[in-house]
Amino acid sequence: MILEMALLTVKPGEGPAFERTMAEAQPLIAATPGFLGLELRPCLEAADRYLLLVRWERLEDHTARFRGSDRYARWKALLHHFYDPFPVVEHYDEPVVETGGPVTRMGD
Amino acid sequence: MILEMALLTVKPGEGPAFERTMAEAQPLIAATPGFLGLELRPCLEAADRYLLLVRWERLEDHTARFRGSDRYARWKALLHHFYDPFPVVEHYDEPVVETGGPVTRMGD
Repeated sequence: MILEMALLTVKPGEGPAFERTMAEAQPLIAATPGFLGLELRPCLEAADRYLLLVRWERLEDHTARFRGSDRYARWKALLHHFYDPFPVVEHYDEPVVETGGPVTRMGD
Repeated sequence: MILEMALLTVKPGEGPAFERTMAEAQPLIAATPGFLGLELRPCLEAADRYLLLVRWERLEDHTARFRGSDRYARWKALLHHFYDPFPVVEHYDEPVVETGGPVTRMGD
């Protein structure tokens, strides 16, 4: 499993609207083959900051299959105007060190 | 569940030694009450960069129980010299948007 990670900073005060829009937009990304799950978490130390984690079977499920889709144009139109600065998106490979907790869904 | 997140950049070429040391060190953090799981993933876009995710029941399990323990002094001695720059550690609250994937361990 590949983990996509983005630190998202939204414009001041736009957090609630951003959260609603992400909830509306998530079927656009979830419809992509290879999509395994998504979570958006608010930062405890900084207002207007979020961590987006998306699990993919393979890197190209995100970089080619989603970003090359018509759904990505709609995703961009819905979400990209919230970000300031525009986020860097990175991908992380299978863990090299891992200590398992209880069997769980990603967000539990 | 609270998610601790740190983007770790290690000194050039020290990735393999860092990975071995993190594997040795992880029982120090895993022994903390409230610890739920840890994963260390290498970045696909940047050498010497890692994403550390640690799941905790509550924020204070990390900030007080682990950082206030004798085990943390050993953790620091083992690991902190690898980092350049020294990482910022942040905590993220329960997801505000979530799309579940299959029931899985964190790192699957």
